[in-house]
Amino acid sequence: MSQIRVGVVGYGYWGPNIVRNLYALGTCEVAALCDKNPAALQKARRVYPSLHVTDSVAELMTSPGIDAVAIVTPVWTHFELAKAALENGKHVFVEKPFTSTAQQAEELIELAARKNLRIMVDHTFLFTGAVKKIRELIDKGALGRLLYFDSARINLGLFQHDVSVVWDLAPHDLAIMDYVIREKAEAVVATGSSHFNGQADIAFLTVYFPNNVLAHINVNWLSPVKVRTTLIGGRDKMLVWNDLEADEKIKVYDKGVTVTSKEGVYDLLVSYRSGDVWAPRVDQTEALKAELAYFLDCIAGGTTPFNDGEAGLRVVRMLEAADRSLAERGKVVPLA
Amino acid sequence: MSQIRVGVVGYGYWGPNIVRNLYALGTCEVAALCDKNPAALQKARRVYPSLHVTDSVAELMTSPGIDAVAIVTPVWTHFELAKAALENGKHVFVEKPFTSTAQQAEELIELAARKNLRIMVDHTFLFTGAVKKIRELIDKGALGRLLYFDSARINLGLFQHDVSVVWDLAPHDLAIMDYVIREKAEAVVATGSSHFNGQADIAFLTVYFPNNVLAHINVNWLSPVKVRTTLIGGRDKMLVWNDLEADEKIKVYDKGVTVTSKEGVYDLLVSYRSGDVWAPRVDQTEALKAELAYFLDCIAGGTTPFNDGEAGLRVVRMLEAADRSLAERGKVVPLA
Amino acid sequence: MSQIRVGVVGYGYWGPNIVRNLYALGTCEVAALCDKNPAALQKARRVYPSLHVTDSVAELMTSPGIDAVAIVTPVWTHFELAKAALENGKHVFVEKPFTSTAQQAEELIELAARKNLRIMVDHTFLFTGAVKKIRELIDKGALGRLLYFDSARINLGLFQHDVSVVWDLAPHDLAIMDYVIREKAEAVVATGSSHFNGQADIAFLTVYFPNNVLAHINVNWLSPVKVRTTLIGGRDKMLVWNDLEADEKIKVYDKGVTVTSKEGVYDLLVSYRSGDVWAPRVDQTEALKAELAYFLDCIAGGTTPFNDGEAGLRVVRMLEAADRSLAERGKVVPLA
Amino acid sequence: MSQIRVGVVGYGYWGPNIVRNLYALGTCEVAALCDKNPAALQKARRVYPSLHVTDSVAELMTSPGIDAVAIVTPVWTHFELAKAALENGKHVFVEKPFTSTAQQAEELIELAARKNLRIMVDHTFLFTGAVKKIRELIDKGALGRLLYFDSARINLGLFQHDVSVVWDLAPHDLAIMDYVIREKAEAVVATGSSHFNGQADIAFLTVYFPNNVLAHINVNWLSPVKVRTTLIGGRDKMLVWNDLEADEKIKVYDKGVTVTSKEGVYDLLVSYRSGDVWAPRVDQTEALKAELAYFLDCIAGGTTPFNDGEAGLRVVRMLEAADRSLAERGKVVPLA
Repeated sequence: MSQIRVGVVGYGYWGPNIVRNLYALGTCEVAALCDKNPAALQKARRVYPSLHVTDSVAELMTSPGIDAVAIVTPVWTHFELAKAALENGKHVFVEKPFTSTAQQAEELIELAARKNLRIMVDHTFLFTGAVKKIRELIDKGALGRLLYFDSARINLGLFQHDVSVVWDLAPHDLAIMDYVIREKAEAVVATGSSHFNGQADIAFLTVYFPNNVLAHINVNWLSPVKVRTTLIGGRDKMLVWNDLEADEKIKVYDKGVTVTSKEGVYDLLVSYRSGDVWAPRVDQTEALKAELAYFLDCIAGGTTPFNDGEAGLRVVRMLEAADRSLAERGKVVPLA
Repeated sequence: MSQIRVGVVGYGYWGPNIVRNLYALGTCEVAALCDKNPAALQKARRVYPSLHVTDSVAELMTSPGIDAVAIVTPVWTHFELAKAALENGKHVFVEKPFTSTAQQAEELIELAARKNLRIMVDHTFLFTGAVKKIRELIDKGALGRLLYFDSARINLGLFQHDVSVVWDLAPHDLAIMDYVIREKAEAVVATGSSHFNGQADIAFLTVYFPNNVLAHINVNWLSPVKVRTTLIGGRDKMLVWNDLEADEKIKVYDKGVTVTSKEGVYDLLVSYRSGDVWAPRVDQTEALKAELAYFLDCIAGGTTPFNDGEAGLRVVRMLEAADRSLAERGKVVPLA
Repeated sequence: MSQIRVGVVGYGYWGPNIVRNLYALGTCEVAALCDKNPAALQKARRVYPSLHVTDSVAELMTSPGIDAVAIVTPVWTHFELAKAALENGKHVFVEKPFTSTAQQAEELIELAARKNLRIMVDHTFLFTGAVKKIRELIDKGALGRLLYFDSARINLGLFQHDVSVVWDLAPHDLAIMDYVIREKAEAVVATGSSHFNGQADIAFLTVYFPNNVLAHINVNWLSPVKVRTTLIGGRDKMLVWNDLEADEKIKVYDKGVTVTSKEGVYDLLVSYRSGDVWAPRVDQTEALKAELAYFLDCIAGGTTPFNDGEAGLRVVRMLEAADRSLAERGKVVPLA
Repeated sequence: MSQIRVGVVGYGYWGPNIVRNLYALGTCEVAALCDKNPAALQKARRVYPSLHVTDSVAELMTSPGIDAVAIVTPVWTHFELAKAALENGKHVFVEKPFTSTAQQAEELIELAARKNLRIMVDHTFLFTGAVKKIRELIDKGALGRLLYFDSARINLGLFQHDVSVVWDLAPHDLAIMDYVIREKAEAVVATGSSHFNGQADIAFLTVYFPNNVLAHINVNWLSPVKVRTTLIGGRDKMLVWNDLEADEKIKVYDKGVTVTSKEGVYDLLVSYRSGDVWAPRVDQTEALKAELAYFLDCIAGGTTPFNDGEAGLRVVRMLEAADRSLAERGKVVPLA
């Protein structure tokens, strides 16, 4: 079979990483790059002299020499671009968050299904060794029944002009949470504050799951220190993922709570166990490379990626709910 | 003037620290210790052979040889004990949280005022070198206008049987927040979950202040790691207090956001400053000792402590609001 | 059998810990305390009103009511005090370092043997959960063949007036090294410098063992930061002990070097393995309490402690060798 | 003036960084690249299609179109290559360590002087923000009189087949030490051990300076953890440089020793000061880029770089002394 021909739209902050990894894979053809900004195109041409570049989205979208489009642009453009790609029979790889509204996401999912095309949403973290290891541990029951998920993703900005800290940073945590908890979220509460340009620059999300499983996400563009830490509590063991650690990113604590009932539920004895700590070796392969290889595999094999439009839609629904909650200072917003 | 004679009620977890520091001060008389538990009294007598111990609260409360009572018992007993002490003309030092309800706190404050007696609520952290330094920095404007306060107090519990993690751990953070922000809190949102005995064991509080100042408090009895960290963001500088650091508990970051308006508010340019970091030397004196000395001073001088009944009441009001919010999964609860 | 009656000489920095733990054990009688300093005796009497105190060493040494003497005084007094105790038929527990010279240590060992009395040298660290765990791991071969031992014990001093940083801090590391390596040290090289009072305040010791096993000890009274870290490298696994960590004091790294010979020894291929990290739970019992209990057991059972005079002598020999090496800027000093 | 034309010899581990930065500078011409390995040349051509590559050193050395040669090859080749470059009238930029022997270094220095050519030894660390800041602090007397320099550079190797850990890692520390202490080293003591291929894989260097200033360097290829820490003690302040810290690489501690003489030198009172800690902002520019720009400046301006052949020679002399000391288990080797 001939190589899949990929066109890339957008060569700003993240686009160069997409192009670099597509080239590095060596298993697809990078057929064209489109950007409205001449400086971006020039920069790309310096590194990849043979790459066809254009400032015309229409040219790329209608080109018969392109099988799949990677959309690496601001979120407000995702819907129109993805729609054009799908309508022209091209598979879509799209940055997170998937779309600006759940309704857009649903329309794209429906369109892709009708055309039998793949959508993959770039939830890159799901392809890191750390998240794969966490999912593996949870799946094999190493933590026992899940109790909570608590994540902090904070540092001194980059302020986005068009989106809040919730749409900028929380999609990472929501996608990871969705991937490892694997339950249907029930409701969202979001609190936060805006200090500079009307967009929230600090926010706290709570996501309710069945069986008292609780997720909490702390995102902040105004922190003097960088923190990338997720705690996952289980009945049998507990886990801390510190993504800033070079070597021991994940630590599994043989710690937990033992509840013994003396005389019925009204007389519970709660005690603690504290045992060894274990830092499993985590795969260090570049996540984006693995994700793009998987995208090509899904196209070639006609299989649905796990980080498909539905996964993207679940995240967008939670972002929308968070916005509604934020607007009313923490009102509980149920998820349909 | 003769020494103030202090009676102590309660010799469980915290009581021994109160007694030890009262003795260490050497400026008051430890007149009596009361506990219902004979083993506790025996333990005390071993260390302080000359200390008068009793299992009768009534005896201690009515003793003419006692000027002030330190109440170091579970929160549900505070109201009755403090009321008895005040009615018998004794000053009151009482553990945090002050009372189980705001209404109780108001009644005690009114009673103390009528009797011209002092109430001090044991918000010990306000007497640490770290919190004193933070207050000093904020007061002299070192951080600029405050933006947010974000605190995490998590570890593998001691589960309390009678209170939730909110009433157990959050009073520390609420008292500190109240002390350093010095504005009237407007509303509380609390989310959380209970996994073992019906009491929340993990909770997240958001407290709204005027001018978009936001406080957030993360309390958790189910964390495998111990965290005691508070971030305070200001317009000019930002501060991190890590109470687990032996030496550099407070770091002040010369970091911040610079907003320049190019053409009106619709075109803000947000940029970042990043300069030196500074860890001021922090006083290492034992906080409880300083607090008890201050209690004796307030009694002797007839002055009102800053951590008085009103300060305790403000914390209890926020705890009550948090409970109401928790019960409705994060409903916004305005503070009167 | 009646309880062993212990007399304690010295109530300065460490003496109070000895007395407190002897009381806490509850299995011996603290028969007398001797100190030349009236303030020290008064301090002791405040805490232990029933304790017999005296400023006469002779009284304590000749008292028929004392079976064993704990010597908690400066090193230059150890020999005379221990000799007096042994000559009066009393067992000896003595602070590290054992004596000022190897010759003194040999004389005491010979005297104790003749009188059938026990000598225990207070190498407290050997009774910590961390060192016990390290020894256990090495003994069961978990690290494979040992390659090196590298320890740093640095902080902003307490300067001793009578000894150098080598005699003050290195005995800890030398005793631990001796306990876990369990080989006969061959030679010592010490370098260092003195900046204030003629005694070395910073020093680096290298101790050579058979089979290319190398130990290195970094002691420093002039460091702005406190470090208590020991690395132990083995052929199969490597270990880091950070004594300042509250919880994960010991980490075992499944890392190592794999050497494969392609064509004879002249063509070695060296590659690396890197696997999981594991922090075994470590016993948190107070080491000194366990050590004193062991001292009483050894007396009662007539058994020789592993931290006996011979163990103390091995450390003193290395300290003497270090002094000789230091005096000649790092000359190699063989151990007899 | 026309651009300086640089030829590069060696495109292994470090060569690509040299070439990348020469291109990035944009102020010189990268005239040719030479490597014996066809795969290396092919790799270079993929990234720089217009770069002239050759496997003939002679071609590059004799080319009239080349003004300066960067030698990025194993140390045992440095002398022959640098000599050929100088003899052909080309300036030399050469990897550390400068040469295999001091005698070679002297010969090259003499040759360059005779030909009026520049030699720069690639002591990259001297161009980092951290080292520049340390030098600046020392030069302006912020630390007071220097007491010691103690550096650890340890991790799980890359074993070099042709050199020991001393020649591989210690040149960094020796060059930094030489740059910031700015005194003539007097003697070297080195201890260490070899476990795999006959080359020392763990070593400890002590370098003696006048006035009791002591330097110590700990290099280790067999450590499970990576450490890059340097302590510098001064009479007034002390400094810790942790190169693995992302943000606060340098911390200055307002800590020190105060010595007061009560009655003559025999009765010194030593006490401690402990004040604030300060982490100055450190320039984050890529060091190698700044160094190469400086190389071009020195050629253009005819000025002698501070990291010239003499600086390289001082390091090589200490490496030779370390080897001699190692061979005799720590014998003191005076520096001429």
